[in-house]
Amino acid sequence: MKIIDTPRGENPVWKKCDEAFRKSLPEVFSDDSPVSEALRYCLRHPGALVRSQLAYQTCLIAGMSEEDALSLATGLEYLHTASLLFDDLPCMDDALERRGFPATHTIYSEDSAILAALAMVNRGYSLLWRSMQKQNDASRREGADYLDNCLGVSGILGGQSRDVHMTAAATSSDVIRVAYEKTVSLVKLTMAFPAILGGAEETRDLELLATYWGLAYQVSDDLKDVCSTAQSTGKTVRQDAAKGRPNIAVCEGVSKAVNRMFHYVAKGDAVLERLVKKRREWVFLTSMRKRFENELTFWQDEEQKIAMTGTV
Amino acid sequence: MKIIDTPRGENPVWKKCDEAFRKSLPEVFSDDSPVSEALRYCLRHPGALVRSQLAYQTCLIAGMSEEDALSLATGLEYLHTASLLFDDLPCMDDALERRGFPATHTIYSEDSAILAALAMVNRGYSLLWRSMQKQNDASRREGADYLDNCLGVSGILGGQSRDVHMTAAATSSDVIRVAYEKTVSLVKLTMAFPAILGGAEETRDLELLATYWGLAYQVSDDLKDVCSTAQSTGKTVRQDAAKGRPNIAVCEGVSKAVNRMFHYVAKGDAVLERLVKKRREWVFLTSMRKRFENELTFWQDEEQKIAMTGTV
Repeated sequence: MKIIDTPRGENPVWKKCDEAFRKSLPEVFSDDSPVSEALRYCLRHPGALVRSQLAYQTCLIAGMSEEDALSLATGLEYLHTASLLFDDLPCMDDALERRGFPATHTIYSEDSAILAALAMVNRGYSLLWRSMQKQNDASRREGADYLDNCLGVSGILGGQSRDVHMTAAATSSDVIRVAYEKTVSLVKLTMAFPAILGGAEETRDLELLATYWGLAYQVSDDLKDVCSTAQSTGKTVRQDAAKGRPNIAVCEGVSKAVNRMFHYVAKGDAVLERLVKKRREWVFLTSMRKRFENELTFWQDEEQKIAMTGTV
Repeated sequence: MKIIDTPRGENPVWKKCDEAFRKSLPEVFSDDSPVSEALRYCLRHPGALVRSQLAYQTCLIAGMSEEDALSLATGLEYLHTASLLFDDLPCMDDALERRGFPATHTIYSEDSAILAALAMVNRGYSLLWRSMQKQNDASRREGADYLDNCLGVSGILGGQSRDVHMTAAATSSDVIRVAYEKTVSLVKLTMAFPAILGGAEETRDLELLATYWGLAYQVSDDLKDVCSTAQSTGKTVRQDAAKGRPNIAVCEGVSKAVNRMFHYVAKGDAVLERLVKKRREWVFLTSMRKRFENELTFWQDEEQKIAMTGTV
């Protein structure tokens, strides 16, 4: 069960993104350092590539070249992968599994996981930089500031810090603030950042949609942590409750969290409708929206069960 | 006792660099996350600012504007500070002191040190990016590739990885390789990278000088780890021998290491002479070279003591 996902197999967008993810750190295949060994492991497990597929298509619609679109998409995916490597460290989430496989630090030592993450950060910035070179001065500047802001202490890094240090006294608005800083920031980079660079008119709506989908995704992830098994999610579950970490489903209960997810999806739907009216090409986002269907049906059933049994 | 250092106090270059270091992450002064607290601590301890002073002056001679020079210099100093935060972590050097103060992770938790380092990385790239905007396409591209290469697995990250995993069987050439990847890469960014961006003719010689000075600096640092006290260096000493970590003075003995340092300084002197002949302004590097004098005199005395007593 995945949301904001794209079918693989014969999907040409997925194929391009998958290949670019695997091949954009070519030097690690001829290097004998421990960090390169860890990186080869990371490159073999690209995950669902949701962010790069979304970013790639958004870049094309916003008028960027295919080469630049792929460069930007892969850069963001590397930054996302790096954020997961850091999240899983013993001093952060202390998770043992990721993408259905053992977390990198559990196999290749903690320093190798950190250095592998930094190598992905370095190449990530490099790829983003490359993708921006053909844009005009103003777009490059605005894009660079947007990136800095989403990735810095006002975005992912501040959110992750508050996440790790949150106490049991946290309110649902504290938890949502962390989701906004940590999860939404990367989705904004996936959808609004390409639009800024390409000078698309719909930047503001794409940012709004990124916000609703990012929050819906985080609530869904929190629900999964509470309700699912490791087998179905491919990562360590019930971490949040066990470690007293912020989780909206723990904080306000499964039923309210499910309603919250429905609310965000509905708000996103209104924005999506507006986007498609403005420019037909955004219809590709509708196909992505359809992936929420299963999720929504699943949680509707789950909610009924909870209502009947009174347990999570 | 410091090398490649610049006197402070009334030095206007140091003043500019110090102020820029302290003020280029303004948002942490109004943010309440644990990472921002750790960052405020880092910003209060800029260290000697050797890299930013060198880079700033090199940028100006290479024809960059003062604003861009300061932006580039501060960006590099942030990346350098981030590398020290990572180096000091328990899974890397496990050091307790840095710049004469407790290491960040010992005061603010490990996750805060990691996230603070990442915030410095993020703003570091951002500042470098900003400094490159006015350069032409070709210089921007070449500069971006140079940066990627120096910071990636072929540079600092690969070197750090090999450093952490080096065994007692390491030869002196293994140790020097690590110094080349890890230490020289950042010095190259300080001296050759601004020249690439500014389109200076002397790029190759600046890269050579960076190599010799970087190696000399690393040998000196290794000697200090073996021979000095924490009080005189401001960081945890005798880490290398205690932890079986690569150290050229442990590997080939103090006497040979001292000779090696003299060799690198002499090779650097030849390059420096050539640079000054080409363009008078490089004479500022000569004043930096003079800072080696104390160092050389100190180790000459030390060598004599070793020759007389036969002990390190």
